[in-house]
Amino acid sequence: MKLADIADHIGGVLEGDGSIDICGLSSLSEASAADITFLANRKYASDVATTSASAVIVGKDWEGDCPCALLRVDDVDSSYSKVGVLISPPPIVFAPGIHATAVIAEDATIGSNVYIGPHCVVEPQAVIGNDCVLVAGVYIGHACVLGEACVLHSHVSLRERSVLGDRVIIHNGSVVGSDGFGYAPDENGVWQKVMQLGNVVIGDDVELGANVTIDRSRFGSTMIGNGVKLDNLVQIAHNVRVGDHTVMASQSGISGSTHVGSHVQVGGQAGIVGHLNIGDRVVIGGKSGVTKDIDSGMFISGFPAMDHRKSTKIKAHIARLPELKKRVVQLEAEIAAMKKDAVE
Amino acid sequence: MKLADIADHIGGVLEGDGSIDICGLSSLSEASAADITFLANRKYASDVATTSASAVIVGKDWEGDCPCALLRVDDVDSSYSKVGVLISPPPIVFAPGIHATAVIAEDATIGSNVYIGPHCVVEPQAVIGNDCVLVAGVYIGHACVLGEACVLHSHVSLRERSVLGDRVIIHNGSVVGSDGFGYAPDENGVWQKVMQLGNVVIGDDVELGANVTIDRSRFGSTMIGNGVKLDNLVQIAHNVRVGDHTVMASQSGISGSTHVGSHVQVGGQAGIVGHLNIGDRVVIGGKSGVTKDIDSGMFISGFPAMDHRKSTKIKAHIARLPELKKRVVQLEAEIAAMKKDAVE
Amino acid sequence: MKLADIADHIGGVLEGDGSIDICGLSSLSEASAADITFLANRKYASDVATTSASAVIVGKDWEGDCPCALLRVDDVDSSYSKVGVLISPPPIVFAPGIHATAVIAEDATIGSNVYIGPHCVVEPQAVIGNDCVLVAGVYIGHACVLGEACVLHSHVSLRERSVLGDRVIIHNGSVVGSDGFGYAPDENGVWQKVMQLGNVVIGDDVELGANVTIDRSRFGSTMIGNGVKLDNLVQIAHNVRVGDHTVMASQSGISGSTHVGSHVQVGGQAGIVGHLNIGDRVVIGGKSGVTKDIDSGMFISGFPAMDHRKSTKIKAHIARLPELKKRVVQLEAEIAAMKKDAVE
Repeated sequence: MKLADIADHIGGVLEGDGSIDICGLSSLSEASAADITFLANRKYASDVATTSASAVIVGKDWEGDCPCALLRVDDVDSSYSKVGVLISPPPIVFAPGIHATAVIAEDATIGSNVYIGPHCVVEPQAVIGNDCVLVAGVYIGHACVLGEACVLHSHVSLRERSVLGDRVIIHNGSVVGSDGFGYAPDENGVWQKVMQLGNVVIGDDVELGANVTIDRSRFGSTMIGNGVKLDNLVQIAHNVRVGDHTVMASQSGISGSTHVGSHVQVGGQAGIVGHLNIGDRVVIGGKSGVTKDIDSGMFISGFPAMDHRKSTKIKAHIARLPELKKRVVQLEAEIAAMKKDAVE
Repeated sequence: MKLADIADHIGGVLEGDGSIDICGLSSLSEASAADITFLANRKYASDVATTSASAVIVGKDWEGDCPCALLRVDDVDSSYSKVGVLISPPPIVFAPGIHATAVIAEDATIGSNVYIGPHCVVEPQAVIGNDCVLVAGVYIGHACVLGEACVLHSHVSLRERSVLGDRVIIHNGSVVGSDGFGYAPDENGVWQKVMQLGNVVIGDDVELGANVTIDRSRFGSTMIGNGVKLDNLVQIAHNVRVGDHTVMASQSGISGSTHVGSHVQVGGQAGIVGHLNIGDRVVIGGKSGVTKDIDSGMFISGFPAMDHRKSTKIKAHIARLPELKKRVVQLEAEIAAMKKDAVE
Repeated sequence: MKLADIADHIGGVLEGDGSIDICGLSSLSEASAADITFLANRKYASDVATTSASAVIVGKDWEGDCPCALLRVDDVDSSYSKVGVLISPPPIVFAPGIHATAVIAEDATIGSNVYIGPHCVVEPQAVIGNDCVLVAGVYIGHACVLGEACVLHSHVSLRERSVLGDRVIIHNGSVVGSDGFGYAPDENGVWQKVMQLGNVVIGDDVELGANVTIDRSRFGSTMIGNGVKLDNLVQIAHNVRVGDHTVMASQSGISGSTHVGSHVQVGGQAGIVGHLNIGDRVVIGGKSGVTKDIDSGMFISGFPAMDHRKSTKIKAHIARLPELKKRVVQLEAEIAAMKKDAVE
């Protein structure tokens, strides 16, 4: 595709030769001739001067030396995505139809334009909305309800009575609605299972990564709000509520009955203990351990998690502990000397 | 169902109108009219006064204001579970039978009253005990042995020669018996695979959450004792032994060859390094990193994990480091002043 | 098998009765009569004297009391593995063939001597190299390319356009090529999906544990080098590059666009933030949180991760914080006393 055509497509201002052919996309440092690349993260600004790409997408106000053609745009990220769609292999499309090997209960309800791939299982009383795609080997438990245009990749399991909104995407191997982790010890310390009688309810436009786990509630529903995005290997325990448009990075987890607000950002490998209330727009640093309620709008980090500036300050103090120790030893020596002087 | 009938069923003392209808269960704060709720965790005591439920289950000695009917019981948790069973949708039952799409080796042994659902695979020489349920897409490797009344949910994999006791429940996507992580570097630092020749042996009444991983041993058996409960995404490495009635919360893990005693409790995201001995009844706080042997009965936390009281004390000291630093600076100033005075 | 035959097979020097029968393998402390065991890790040296095994494999120079026969060898680990192969049940072999229930696209290319087990799915344009084994319920997405002699265990998912080298082993439930976790907020803080247009490319002789997740790149390829070994539940985000012969222990993770060198060792539950460069031969301690670029050859630990000796030193200082505090209090008291003296 000609660079000039790409410039037209994204409404970019071209500086350079529009007649060159663009065949691929890559990062600044990895690009080779005939690739187009982009500068979105300032961290990579110095890579522009040395890129081997044939063209770079930059912001309107970018200044610097560039060895190749430039496309100036308002929003580098979205422009790049548009170029990606133009140049990349087309996304995989699953044309509507039900594969002969799928096992679908007679009393399940299947909407129109649905694709149900090989070896999927749809249990009794389940409802699959219009335009849904179950790629392959997907398990839909009894009486689950899927909204419209959901995409469930291979080996996803929805356990009984789970409910999905519209346009929910679930990547491979994720599990929604397994039993919550609930046991009560008897007099011998033997754990007796506490029945997990609730379900999981997931809103619209939610995306779950691969091998995510979301447990159903003991009673009522574990709730995942609209627009929530969970990365791979995230854990959501029973009776948790996650507010709208909250995102959680990989390997983070929320313990039972905690309520997390909307627009919250949880860093990778962070954990939140049970029975807490986390406000809206809270930012939780990676690897944090949250042990108490958090007010809306806070940026917290550390374990126990606290205000991020305080946490950062304390980490700096920790790094200087050997020096502090030396200063105390020095003080002790000086005082000992002063006492000795006083006696003499 | 009438509240009076519920009171009869759980042997509770009714205070209020027994003729009201109860249709659902919920938590104190989320309940609406016609729900029954309960107070088990004191943290929620203040929610009783404001609940919208039609009835609350409380302990015998509970005192306070309640806007609705009360049921007083000896054990709130177990009473609530009983009510849950009464009111909730019935649990899913899989009637015995083998689905036409299941692939079962000719020399596998299948007990009586077994359910083997769609797309399950049972490899040669495997033994499935009476009353087992393999829900769908379950993989049973060569020569595995399942006791009686085990329930394996969709996409569970048991690798070759794994052994399960009776009444083992395994949630979706969990893997039992994959190769241990064992390699030895050659002279070029290239990792050569060390054969993993053992298996996994799991006791009676064990429950594994979703997407759990338990590796088979290099030799002998990775052992999971009776009554062990592992939450979602827990990792058990090769040659580990987990004692009876030990519980591990989500995303925690045990490295190779470590032996953990019985009645141990491991918090979420905690890790235990390899080749350790952890005693009985040890409690390990969430996110702890255990780096040495631990005596029975200890409560440990932190990284490196230590006695929990000491760990808590040290965390308090850490939080006050900025103040300690100021006090040292102040001391230095005072001593400098004293020295100056002494000179003058 | 006679002990003398085992000695012959591994080229070991026998001390004791070669005519005894060896029937099993076990560890020093767990062995019983007719077992052979070994001493590879010095930590267990004291267990030799009390083992119930019938024979122990030790190093050439080992000295000590042993209640049973000895086999002295140059390399205990490799000798033990050889004995394991002799004595253990034979590894499971999947003879070439395609199961009747496998669903294979007409335009997929299947090499020679391939085993494709029950309920596997191979999507259009995929290429499966010679001698590959897809055990059961494996999903191979559109246009994936597998080299020769790969083994994919049950419920593995390879998403579209993933590429594997030769002799790649992937354990059960792992996911290669799911969408990277990429979203951009709109003006209302609603997360808009950023298309993930790239793929995952995995080198030769790679082994992935169970329930591992590797995301495909936004553009270009997420790259896993030759000889890389990833333990269970490891997370690799989009656009990451992992160098040759790097190993990562269970539950560790790498965030997006970070490049990790070759021969790196990452401890369990460690995390590396995004957009970093980690050199070659770096060792990262368990539970570390790596927040900045790391030079080749460093051994780092802690969070934020730093030079391991410094990290260890600081941890020792932290453990003595209560004592340091006391010393500061003592100094304050002494200075107060000195001031009082000076006044009087």
